[in-house]
Amino acid sequence: MAVYTEVSDEALADFLAAYDIGGAISFKGIAEGVENSNYLLLTTAGQYVLTLYEKRVDPADLPYYLGLMTHLAAHGLTCPLPVAARDGALSRTLCGRPAAVQTFLPGVWPRRVRNEHCGAVGTALATLHAAGEGFALTRANALGPSGWRPLYARCAGRADEVRPGLGGEIEAALEAILGAWPEGLPKGHIHADLFPDNVFFLGDRLSGLIDFYFACTDLYAYDVAVCLNAWCFEPDASFNVTKAKLLLGGYTARRPFTAAERAALPTLAAGAALRFLLTRLHDWLHHPPGAFVTPKDPLEYARKLRFHRAARSERDYGLD
Amino acid sequence: MAVYTEVSDEALADFLAAYDIGGAISFKGIAEGVENSNYLLLTTAGQYVLTLYEKRVDPADLPYYLGLMTHLAAHGLTCPLPVAARDGALSRTLCGRPAAVQTFLPGVWPRRVRNEHCGAVGTALATLHAAGEGFALTRANALGPSGWRPLYARCAGRADEVRPGLGGEIEAALEAILGAWPEGLPKGHIHADLFPDNVFFLGDRLSGLIDFYFACTDLYAYDVAVCLNAWCFEPDASFNVTKAKLLLGGYTARRPFTAAERAALPTLAAGAALRFLLTRLHDWLHHPPGAFVTPKDPLEYARKLRFHRAARSERDYGLD
Repeated sequence: MAVYTEVSDEALADFLAAYDIGGAISFKGIAEGVENSNYLLLTTAGQYVLTLYEKRVDPADLPYYLGLMTHLAAHGLTCPLPVAARDGALSRTLCGRPAAVQTFLPGVWPRRVRNEHCGAVGTALATLHAAGEGFALTRANALGPSGWRPLYARCAGRADEVRPGLGGEIEAALEAILGAWPEGLPKGHIHADLFPDNVFFLGDRLSGLIDFYFACTDLYAYDVAVCLNAWCFEPDASFNVTKAKLLLGGYTARRPFTAAERAALPTLAAGAALRFLLTRLHDWLHHPPGAFVTPKDPLEYARKLRFHRAARSERDYGLD
Repeated sequence: MAVYTEVSDEALADFLAAYDIGGAISFKGIAEGVENSNYLLLTTAGQYVLTLYEKRVDPADLPYYLGLMTHLAAHGLTCPLPVAARDGALSRTLCGRPAAVQTFLPGVWPRRVRNEHCGAVGTALATLHAAGEGFALTRANALGPSGWRPLYARCAGRADEVRPGLGGEIEAALEAILGAWPEGLPKGHIHADLFPDNVFFLGDRLSGLIDFYFACTDLYAYDVAVCLNAWCFEPDASFNVTKAKLLLGGYTARRPFTAAERAALPTLAAGAALRFLLTRLHDWLHHPPGAFVTPKDPLEYARKLRFHRAARSERDYGLD
């Protein structure tokens, strides 16, 4: 949760004058999204979300994110649609920051994941991968395998403060996962952060995906592996193979895995767990005291990583 | 800004089942309101605000707050309307806390007060006072004159940590203001906290008032005095008599002051400044380190207090 920037009514009125969406009827900061300032904006034309990009998002990446969302929405994925200003720009400046208007996506994200959600998430992820085909820009995955050693280097000396032995475990995992990392798997535009708070439902029906600010060009099956981590563990860290079967079933019904993708699943899942373990560890060790945001527990992902490193094949994920 | 309570989708669905407002289409925590958890709730029936009352609000006071809002809305004041559950209750329990649904009030609060706002605020406050007539419940003003000495007693030893000499200044003000506090002025239901973030505008038109959780039964003119403090000082702490003239003009056009109210204005304005000085001083000295909310500067109100204590009559506020 965070709203970092206070937008004056005059600044908002000036900003909206560049768009064809009427004047503001209501404007409220939303307590969602850690890195950007998000506002629910109701105008005479309808309901929108206005985002001010704070320091985590590189302005140079905005054409990729906003262009991808526009492309995805035009090719069958339900997601917020960036609204162009009258001059065609998808982002403008507000309060000294890049800012964008997007359509409002109805739905509520599931605070507790139920089995019924998982098949729908798999299907939506396959839809996203198919819808992204043909989008011409690319963005390297800054948090992909090549980023893990540098990220760990910034934490290595202090990993054992979080739990004795954690550093050794991470080093062994890095060695094994990077050594086994697959080559040549199908790739394209991936979400890379499809956690429950980025998936909206209306009742049991999935109503859309949000938050494309980790999207990048990488392995499709790695995106599935992120979802296995995000959706298929219970709060006690046990792996729920029924959820995994449903998620993978939903995905592969729309885009079947290649044999190489199936074989790589344990490595990809372990890599995805390691990625979140490393970013959480980094934030845990480096967050300023008294900051707004409570860092998330890195050890949750150390437990998930152990599960994946012990997995022997795709069968451990419910794939026949 | 604060959302303290995470509401699961199942808990929300159960809660909404007791109302006739349909199912949730969207549910987002709002980064407004320091003491309660507020959510924008869109249902198949329309847009609402759902409030979970955290510890600052005494559940025993909810019938007063929610009943008053219902009464005010029925008597000509535009404010959120509490929505009754199917059994008639204006509040129910959600996540172990008292919770209420209110209609959504369009509008944007002014981040920078302009002269045009002030007349409208005065008019709206007089409308509120008239609309409250006939509402039978009462609630003592816990932050009124009888509460100031006990509040100061909890800060007295440390006031000079904030600024050397502040303690002596407060003690002299307490003595003078309580000694001069008027008796027998017209009283009734007052808002008691009508700051800019509680007043919505659409363009230059005032569209309604929110946040009645300091409302109480007290002097009408004291409510006006709170507004003089909240709306008529510039960011550099200078008093803007044009704004005061507009605010008082808007108010008295609808409800003329009695001679006693006019004469008491400097004392009431000083008392209102002292009330906010004391609560801010208390929060400044007692807020837990690392808490979400940055306490507001008590010295802003020490400066306002000095202005009022130097005022000689209502003429210093632009009243002829």
